[in-house]
Amino acid sequence: MLENLKKRVYEQNIALVKHGLVVLTWGNVSAKDPETGLVVIKPSGVPYDTMKAEDMVVIDLDGNVVDGSYRPSSDLPTHLYLYKQYPTLGGVVHTHSAYATAFAQSGREIIAYGTTHADAFYGNVPCARSLTDEEIDEAYEWNTGKVIAEAVTDAEAIPAVLVKNHGVFTWGKTPEKAVENAVTLEEVAKMALFTEQLDPGTPRIKQHLLDKHYFRKHGKNAYYGQK
Amino acid sequence: MLENLKKRVYEQNIALVKHGLVVLTWGNVSAKDPETGLVVIKPSGVPYDTMKAEDMVVIDLDGNVVDGSYRPSSDLPTHLYLYKQYPTLGGVVHTHSAYATAFAQSGREIIAYGTTHADAFYGNVPCARSLTDEEIDEAYEWNTGKVIAEAVTDAEAIPAVLVKNHGVFTWGKTPEKAVENAVTLEEVAKMALFTEQLDPGTPRIKQHLLDKHYFRKHGKNAYYGQK
Amino acid sequence: MLENLKKRVYEQNIALVKHGLVVLTWGNVSAKDPETGLVVIKPSGVPYDTMKAEDMVVIDLDGNVVDGSYRPSSDLPTHLYLYKQYPTLGGVVHTHSAYATAFAQSGREIIAYGTTHADAFYGNVPCARSLTDEEIDEAYEWNTGKVIAEAVTDAEAIPAVLVKNHGVFTWGKTPEKAVENAVTLEEVAKMALFTEQLDPGTPRIKQHLLDKHYFRKHGKNAYYGQK
Amino acid sequence: MLENLKKRVYEQNIALVKHGLVVLTWGNVSAKDPETGLVVIKPSGVPYDTMKAEDMVVIDLDGNVVDGSYRPSSDLPTHLYLYKQYPTLGGVVHTHSAYATAFAQSGREIIAYGTTHADAFYGNVPCARSLTDEEIDEAYEWNTGKVIAEAVTDAEAIPAVLVKNHGVFTWGKTPEKAVENAVTLEEVAKMALFTEQLDPGTPRIKQHLLDKHYFRKHGKNAYYGQK
Repeated sequence: MLENLKKRVYEQNIALVKHGLVVLTWGNVSAKDPETGLVVIKPSGVPYDTMKAEDMVVIDLDGNVVDGSYRPSSDLPTHLYLYKQYPTLGGVVHTHSAYATAFAQSGREIIAYGTTHADAFYGNVPCARSLTDEEIDEAYEWNTGKVIAEAVTDAEAIPAVLVKNHGVFTWGKTPEKAVENAVTLEEVAKMALFTEQLDPGTPRIKQHLLDKHYFRKHGKNAYYGQK
Repeated sequence: MLENLKKRVYEQNIALVKHGLVVLTWGNVSAKDPETGLVVIKPSGVPYDTMKAEDMVVIDLDGNVVDGSYRPSSDLPTHLYLYKQYPTLGGVVHTHSAYATAFAQSGREIIAYGTTHADAFYGNVPCARSLTDEEIDEAYEWNTGKVIAEAVTDAEAIPAVLVKNHGVFTWGKTPEKAVENAVTLEEVAKMALFTEQLDPGTPRIKQHLLDKHYFRKHGKNAYYGQK
Repeated sequence: MLENLKKRVYEQNIALVKHGLVVLTWGNVSAKDPETGLVVIKPSGVPYDTMKAEDMVVIDLDGNVVDGSYRPSSDLPTHLYLYKQYPTLGGVVHTHSAYATAFAQSGREIIAYGTTHADAFYGNVPCARSLTDEEIDEAYEWNTGKVIAEAVTDAEAIPAVLVKNHGVFTWGKTPEKAVENAVTLEEVAKMALFTEQLDPGTPRIKQHLLDKHYFRKHGKNAYYGQK
Repeated sequence: MLENLKKRVYEQNIALVKHGLVVLTWGNVSAKDPETGLVVIKPSGVPYDTMKAEDMVVIDLDGNVVDGSYRPSSDLPTHLYLYKQYPTLGGVVHTHSAYATAFAQSGREIIAYGTTHADAFYGNVPCARSLTDEEIDEAYEWNTGKVIAEAVTDAEAIPAVLVKNHGVFTWGKTPEKAVENAVTLEEVAKMALFTEQLDPGTPRIKQHLLDKHYFRKHGKNAYYGQK
């Protein structure tokens, strides 16, 4: 069932390791099949070096396991919330990558200081508010999706968010694009920390240059890459 | 004698290198055999790239070499102290991993800033007090175990400690789990440094969220991973 | 057409990845053929792991594609500006390497603090001014070349520049030398950040030592390397 | 001639790359043959990935090339100065490793903050004074040896030095030990920077603990490693 998508989800989970975004089992990638609406996600707590493509779990949008012998990632409800909230998403990624997570731990957004940021994210990457004690107790992972949605103003323009005291979520039209955004997020977080260390008063990139770079790669006038 | 446990201890010593936690010969992993109570540990000062599983040394809890042609790690008495003090331990790890050791050198605990920390450690990771000159002169490595025990309030809930001006010790029910805790400790130390660089006034994670994450992975209501 | 140069340009683009200067597709290397004056450059947005030497694009100095089935890097006009402005150049490199880009984001030059810097760059590495909104709208990549040329005082003596809020360009007599300068630039940017963290008041290297090291490797009295 | 020592010197030059201490060609290892007093050193400016053991150059202590078709490292006179000054040395290493070089650029010694440092260096690692303009003009590399010797109080107890605005030299009884000291120096420099970032007022390790760790590994009462 969905063998090809399982393989892609598996490969993108492994890509997180190769890009240095996860250690141990601290990350997960999911994808939504555009035809059936089913979601494929990494099993919970399975080590990356023994995990196989066939271990991926298939779930419907209500969270029922449709195929697979493992339990899905415990972060599944957050993935599902995002797929329901943003119907065009084809992939979602969760990591604790170190630099971006440091921003999440300090409760700060990542300021757009340069074109590396602007090439992928049309503005600062926001940090979601803390969950209330009630939101933590009731349905923690689902409510994590809810506070993410509160912080996101345009999921297509800024396909990433920091979850306060926790880590990051990124997404995209495909699982490959979602992982690419996770790579970019960590790199711009690192650069932003270094930038502030060089000059804590560094201003944000000016809007005109942010527009130029974002729209060089996105929208109908994009001219980066191959047609 | 204890061939299987020797192999596991060997592999976990090599894992320290693969995870970037040790350079040269600055680290060691031991394990306690649950049936015999014997301890298997890395030999002292043997390079990781020529070391073999059969080079591991077997010691009884009083420190007598029972099997092996090499001298055991000079940190052995600290390992033995911990096994005696905490009978449920199955593995102990010592490293000088850079970020965690920087905390040890500055004599500071590692504050729990996020869920990466809370997933493994139920509270701040403490830093043991300095040994007195007498404690250094008498039985240095044994007394290192003693000051660790003074700093530890619950060895199961926070399976890690910083040894002031020295390095780190972690532990677990198995040597594999002890190494996993060493990996986590270094990663949360790195994130904690970055977090404080972003905002020196960052508050600790709130207790309710720390509870949620710790008990998502530990205890009878845990729901992370496979059953 | 220019098969050998295509191979060298391909290999130097791959070298950027090996040296850790680019992630994803954020970088490009070009070379100018000294006989024909034609330029060979990486195609736009093609992943490094599937790219082949034959995918390189050949362009004349007016930007017309002479050979190749892909569109050239979108940064091509900046490369062409530099080849026209500095006729002795044989290679140009663009990266977003993290430490150097942090200096570019903070709008600061990289101060010459040591001989590592002086061995390659005869003075501070300048940061170009921001482009005006008009310069961004009209011919962004070409005008990037223009502001670079304004900041460069001697392209041979300091073969590198920071582009404000963006990234870095380096160059040399060959694409191999241009990549070597990109490696050096990132390393000296890293060391400069650490140096300022150790002592924000660190003075620049004294001119006499800078002269010694630069001319040990450059000019008619050089005595580093093989004759 | 001295084929075995050439092989060891070659391997230790490659070890510098593997340990991440050098990029491009910025480092060199030499060894002194204890029987003949001849010195074997890396050739100048030869890339590490094409260099072979037979390319090593043999020199007498007056700097005359005795064997080899390449020119020796331009840093040779500094190596020779150290071999003459300290007759027990069997190996010398020069690198521009990033963290240690940052200390050299800021003109600061590396303070002994912990046992990682004390295991190898019996006190702070000093930073040599700047060379005068005359010393730079006359015999730069030889005079670099001279200012190193001025800064060194006990070459055996602290086998490392920072050269101001330049880089590091380490040494030992063998080239292997000299490289090990270069690895340790970079690691303790990194930890020292992080330690100061955590707490700029961190005091030096207390003398009693420094003594304990240094003499655990050195001298007649050492008990670390195998007999």
